[in-house]
Amino acid sequence: MICGRTPEELIRDIKAFHGYVAPGLLIGAFMVDSVQLRLGKGVEADAIVETKHCLPDAVQLFSPCTVGNGWLKILDLDKFALTFHDRHSHSGIRVWLDIEKAKAFPDIYNWFMRLVSKKDLPTDVLVKAIFSAGTDILSHAEVKVIQFAAREKKGAIKVCSICHEAYAASQGETCLACQGNGYYQRIPA
Amino acid sequence: MICGRTPEELIRDIKAFHGYVAPGLLIGAFMVDSVQLRLGKGVEADAIVETKHCLPDAVQLFSPCTVGNGWLKILDLDKFALTFHDRHSHSGIRVWLDIEKAKAFPDIYNWFMRLVSKKDLPTDVLVKAIFSAGTDILSHAEVKVIQFAAREKKGAIKVCSICHEAYAASQGETCLACQGNGYYQRIPA
Repeated sequence: MICGRTPEELIRDIKAFHGYVAPGLLIGAFMVDSVQLRLGKGVEADAIVETKHCLPDAVQLFSPCTVGNGWLKILDLDKFALTFHDRHSHSGIRVWLDIEKAKAFPDIYNWFMRLVSKKDLPTDVLVKAIFSAGTDILSHAEVKVIQFAAREKKGAIKVCSICHEAYAASQGETCLACQGNGYYQRIPA
Repeated sequence: MICGRTPEELIRDIKAFHGYVAPGLLIGAFMVDSVQLRLGKGVEADAIVETKHCLPDAVQLFSPCTVGNGWLKILDLDKFALTFHDRHSHSGIRVWLDIEKAKAFPDIYNWFMRLVSKKDLPTDVLVKAIFSAGTDILSHAEVKVIQFAAREKKGAIKVCSICHEAYAASQGETCLACQGNGYYQRIPA
């Protein structure tokens, strides 16, 4: 069992949430599972992932931590690693895909290092390799989280005098979007 | 039906993913549902949410877009709004909680504007108010997304000469973490 699921259930849940069986998300399942095992059941753990790609979904699917509930933070360090830490003590365990260990599994190594095209390494072959590698491509370390550890609190809100929508008062006299940081143009009706 | 679910199924799925029935996530279900209805089924839509709180989970639960698959982007504008846009034309629909309309539902208005404590407004009362308001507290506008519209591509990767982990080559000679931007201290074994 990985994350309390059979391999078939794991594949099914990944497809349902992520849209397709991303190899990175499958490796992520082994990462989440192995860290949770090491931390033990009594720990209320928050998560930090070090990339926007794939891994956030592994945390969201296989642990209670999501972006929306604030227990998961996503850093844009672009590393295939994540940490679960005790939300009170901030002690935790970081897990990462260990390149040296991955060399023993050429399909995984070549995929991860982008040395092979999708055409030359079909997903089902790669998926098999990931299941057979399991946690053998991972390394773990005990860490103390010293940044991004605390949960963020919502501050006061205000209604923007320009767009009349609510926004965080800390942004200033009008909302960030009306200050010129919007991402859209409105199409006149 | 909201997002293809009965109210009971909606509550169950929110609890399973988010850990508890967050009022913002429930309103988010109505937002996602109403935008998807307006866009129609043929549109392959990517999403942008304007806050880190609650709403990202509504998009991830009730649409195919997740952080990890890259179809959802999260902006930190701290506004209770989201946009789904055609991933090719970038035309789409923005929906937001309309403060003026919310005034007709005092429990929702007072909760959203943080004018009432949790003690004085139990979640079950608020949840009932949200179901009875439905989409009556929302406004919609057609928009053209002019920033953050394109999906991001992963770039080249390299192995860091200090930590020996893989990272995005665009970060420079060593990874961002080894450049001093790490978030943890390693605890010696």
